[in-house]
Amino acid sequence: MEQTTPTQQPKKLFTNKPKRFNNRRTFDRGRKPPHPGGPIDIMAEPLEKKTAHIPAPLPGVIRVIPLGGVEEIGKNMTVIEIGDDIIVIDAGMHFANENTPGIDYVIPNTRYLEERKDKIRALIITHGHLDHIGGVPLVLSRIGNPPVYSRNLTILMTQKRQAEFSHLPPMNPIIVETDQTVKIGELTIKFWGVTHTIPDSMGIIIETPYGNIVTPGDYKLDQVDGIVSEREEQEYAQFDNANNLLLLTDSTNIENEGFSLAEIKVHQGIEAILRREKNNRIFIAAFASHITRLIRIVEIAEELGKKIVVEGRSMKTNIDVITQAGLLKPSKGLIIPVEDIEKYPPDRILVLITGAQGEEFGALNRAANKTNKKLTLRKGDRIILSASVIPGNERQVQAMKDGLSRQGVKIISYRTPGEDFVHATGHGNKEDIKWLHRKMHAKFFVPIHGHHYHLELHKELAMELGMLEANIVVPDNGSIIEITHDGTKIGVRKEKAPSSPMMVDGFSVGDEQNVVIRDRQMLAEDGMFVVMAVIDQKTGMLRKSPDIISRGFVYLKENQELLRQTRILTKRTIEASSKNLNPNNLDNIKNIVGETISKYLLQKTAKRPLVIPVILLM
Amino acid sequence: MEQTTPTQQPKKLFTNKPKRFNNRRTFDRGRKPPHPGGPIDIMAEPLEKKTAHIPAPLPGVIRVIPLGGVEEIGKNMTVIEIGDDIIVIDAGMHFANENTPGIDYVIPNTRYLEERKDKIRALIITHGHLDHIGGVPLVLSRIGNPPVYSRNLTILMTQKRQAEFSHLPPMNPIIVETDQTVKIGELTIKFWGVTHTIPDSMGIIIETPYGNIVTPGDYKLDQVDGIVSEREEQEYAQFDNANNLLLLTDSTNIENEGFSLAEIKVHQGIEAILRREKNNRIFIAAFASHITRLIRIVEIAEELGKKIVVEGRSMKTNIDVITQAGLLKPSKGLIIPVEDIEKYPPDRILVLITGAQGEEFGALNRAANKTNKKLTLRKGDRIILSASVIPGNERQVQAMKDGLSRQGVKIISYRTPGEDFVHATGHGNKEDIKWLHRKMHAKFFVPIHGHHYHLELHKELAMELGMLEANIVVPDNGSIIEITHDGTKIGVRKEKAPSSPMMVDGFSVGDEQNVVIRDRQMLAEDGMFVVMAVIDQKTGMLRKSPDIISRGFVYLKENQELLRQTRILTKRTIEASSKNLNPNNLDNIKNIVGETISKYLLQKTAKRPLVIPVILLM
Repeated sequence: MEQTTPTQQPKKLFTNKPKRFNNRRTFDRGRKPPHPGGPIDIMAEPLEKKTAHIPAPLPGVIRVIPLGGVEEIGKNMTVIEIGDDIIVIDAGMHFANENTPGIDYVIPNTRYLEERKDKIRALIITHGHLDHIGGVPLVLSRIGNPPVYSRNLTILMTQKRQAEFSHLPPMNPIIVETDQTVKIGELTIKFWGVTHTIPDSMGIIIETPYGNIVTPGDYKLDQVDGIVSEREEQEYAQFDNANNLLLLTDSTNIENEGFSLAEIKVHQGIEAILRREKNNRIFIAAFASHITRLIRIVEIAEELGKKIVVEGRSMKTNIDVITQAGLLKPSKGLIIPVEDIEKYPPDRILVLITGAQGEEFGALNRAANKTNKKLTLRKGDRIILSASVIPGNERQVQAMKDGLSRQGVKIISYRTPGEDFVHATGHGNKEDIKWLHRKMHAKFFVPIHGHHYHLELHKELAMELGMLEANIVVPDNGSIIEITHDGTKIGVRKEKAPSSPMMVDGFSVGDEQNVVIRDRQMLAEDGMFVVMAVIDQKTGMLRKSPDIISRGFVYLKENQELLRQTRILTKRTIEASSKNLNPNNLDNIKNIVGETISKYLLQKTAKRPLVIPVILLM
Repeated sequence: MEQTTPTQQPKKLFTNKPKRFNNRRTFDRGRKPPHPGGPIDIMAEPLEKKTAHIPAPLPGVIRVIPLGGVEEIGKNMTVIEIGDDIIVIDAGMHFANENTPGIDYVIPNTRYLEERKDKIRALIITHGHLDHIGGVPLVLSRIGNPPVYSRNLTILMTQKRQAEFSHLPPMNPIIVETDQTVKIGELTIKFWGVTHTIPDSMGIIIETPYGNIVTPGDYKLDQVDGIVSEREEQEYAQFDNANNLLLLTDSTNIENEGFSLAEIKVHQGIEAILRREKNNRIFIAAFASHITRLIRIVEIAEELGKKIVVEGRSMKTNIDVITQAGLLKPSKGLIIPVEDIEKYPPDRILVLITGAQGEEFGALNRAANKTNKKLTLRKGDRIILSASVIPGNERQVQAMKDGLSRQGVKIISYRTPGEDFVHATGHGNKEDIKWLHRKMHAKFFVPIHGHHYHLELHKELAMELGMLEANIVVPDNGSIIEITHDGTKIGVRKEKAPSSPMMVDGFSVGDEQNVVIRDRQMLAEDGMFVVMAVIDQKTGMLRKSPDIISRGFVYLKENQELLRQTRILTKRTIEASSKNLNPNNLDNIKNIVGETISKYLLQKTAKRPLVIPVILLM
């Protein structure tokens, strides 16, 4: 007979969990390494066509579907469908959060595209950030692997992402430049350069008979104190006399007044700090994706005669990619391995490090927790947190700062009073957005990135700028927007493209994980409680006292009496109803036992564990 | 034989979970109603004395122990021990977060006090907020139910809290006023009035032979643009020539420059909005604990001829308590039941509502989700979010704003540009803190509230103001601080009082929940996987194909092949090692099966469910 000892927590012999569960931040963003490249999608593909009821757009109609990015920040993906051609813009991801325990990350729903593969001519990427490229490998493999168009650095970043999925077919990249016009299917497409935190960011212009569809991707203006640079004016000059039909753009910072802080002010701020704190080791924790800043920091460090240590996987990867792209040309010996850090005096050390969000396994957080074997902080070290705190990460960032401050370091963050600027957003604020609308003077407007509230505020702003309400659509993920009547009307179809997020959960990718996630949430709240009994089929009596397996419910060691009473109650409940039993009505007994035990446990503990009765007839 | 159908998710017949698990925000703060008053502490009390190694303070020594509040925001509790007398200041709580799934709330560790009950003379409460009174009922019952001293409203609020635990003995309240001097044990104790967001907030002065121990509790200055009111100057005038030995105070807002925004500016701001938006229904979502503001809003509403609807349990409770305390005197018919809301035109309706943090079951969030049966929002309603977003709640507040904006309401928050002020913090900013230090000119300083980083910044500030580093202690929860040598030295003992947080988890309260929480976190990430097999003891073969019960792992419906293979593998693994089996080496087979199945599932799914093998010999 099964010998679970119900008086102690069963040993966790079989789980082999690494240090992942150190009682902190289990549901962190980015807590897991990216997809390890194993066999994707063990699920059977559902055969049923889920979008068959959605007709193809009529001739002359322009269809636009945001498949991701409009009910969230992240997982951007927008579909443009005209005639026989579908163009997909971006294929991003976002990280899981406390509502999606155990999930690795989330990508847009691709069903609409999967069922129209033969029409898909291209995936065009605006820039190389994960919220625009993170879903590329999985999306490409689902939509027939169309060619991927973008500028050089973006293609390199996307290939790096693709390389994490080595079992998937390689992508077919086509590098474009901003002075190029490409013909994709029947469509003529052009590009222009925009300012973001990563070089080679570009906007997209799709020509149509009624005018252009334009989207800048993520952008801010290259301006200082509201004066837009000449370079930027030149990039946008082509729109002055353009016939723009539809503007698709970002609402992330619609709540922020004024123009976004110029990145150059941050470069100046960081340089000033480096010059002022010249006797101390400097750690700069920045987003590894903030390529523009990384490049400038490396330059400043070289000017000041410092050696650079690069810490954290994504930071190393990105420094490699931008070096390969020729955007960074560090002189020999400038970047040193972390092992050599003690060979130089403090005033010669600058560490570029990941983990400004307090991510559980981020290099800086491990240093804060003293679990970073390669890197030990010292009293007097200066830690520049050159990043904003992503909403939802506040508590983990606070915990990291607490850990850092215990080690006698000085933390300089964008909240530190009197310090120079150490961070600026990469997205345009309200004035940047207004400038864009005026420059584009498009007939129609669809906001394609942000939470719903942001989109509504953006709509209000567009109306303040003179746009008609009827010419604006605030979409949801999956909204099928159409421009009809020779480009004079915009509206939303009554059908909707499937839009529930695709969850990447280990090797599985699917949009039907809700049941699994709900169970995880229940288990996380109250744990589980398996009660097992074997009924003697001759006597209807139990062969022995029931066994109990429970995890995550109560501290069993201190609840022996509860377990004893539960066993007695189980035995009594079964034996009261097991007269003339046959295997066919075991289910009934299971139901009774489950209900009885659930009620009893709730009454005694105020907890509702997932009760699973296992009853055998032998 | 057990008939679990392994090809589908077993039905959740036995859990009876209410709508709590609607796939959102499972680990919300405040998601659960307060303790329902059932049987507390089914755990056996550990007999072992955990603090026996800590000697009593020597004669002439002043001992101070922050048992909570210095590694977090919340669960404030500070112990003062002099000679034979122990005074406890405050007994707060904080809510659970994503690191403590399933936990209801957390209170300070009381073991040090439990083992010194006979010395405890009083619990003195500074003010009636949950982070200072939320732990009172459970703490009192553990430390011998000493008398509770505070001012009138605080006592009423604490009694309201106590009433939720009807099985506990009633508390013994002693109402004090700020002009009173009380003798508690051998100690002489005085009070003074401080400004916070709730009336009757008070500071505490404990006289000692070397000078006073002073703590203001939570406070901000009653000032406008840096000019402190006469009333406030009078309250603090007594300190001008006082001999203050030790200042214990709060560091919450140490990172905020300047003085805190005056509450009167918020009152003016809200009044201005009410006058401007006079044709619309107004909803004001505020902290129910912000009594000062609630009182003023009710007054303004009455002046403007509006009817008031009070929505949300804690809002109703607090309106009741302050009416009972005589702080609110609403004229008859001013407050109307929610059912009558449609009887008045929009311009006559003001709704005071809970849920500004987007709490899952907050009244406003339910209105945003259209699950608030009593309250339906209408296009044109004005929603004033008269509260800051507590760190960690950003995502749920965003989700609520999205839901609200879908209903055509206008949201006015403290971020809304160009609007009047709608919220101010209740804690002093840096200039308030500096003013306090100068006014108190104490010899020693111990920060007693905030995250460690805040405490360190506060220490830096105190040194800038001229205090010696040797006279400042930055404590952890449980640090035993002593003032020795006739009041000339302060230091920390090497022993520490037990300080791991006491988790309130249903009816259980304990400081050893780590195992349970770790299991919940594992279950939340990867779920569970029970594999059951019955071995025929004569043949060593399985009696039938193994059964599988799994939850929260993979979507079983689409993973039938995986389950089939797992059953085959289980059978093969068992039968390969079940020759000459006797019940005593079943454990060995269980280990082998567990390891084999864990490895197999990891390889196939990249997930690590909690694998539980159940193997019976029959």
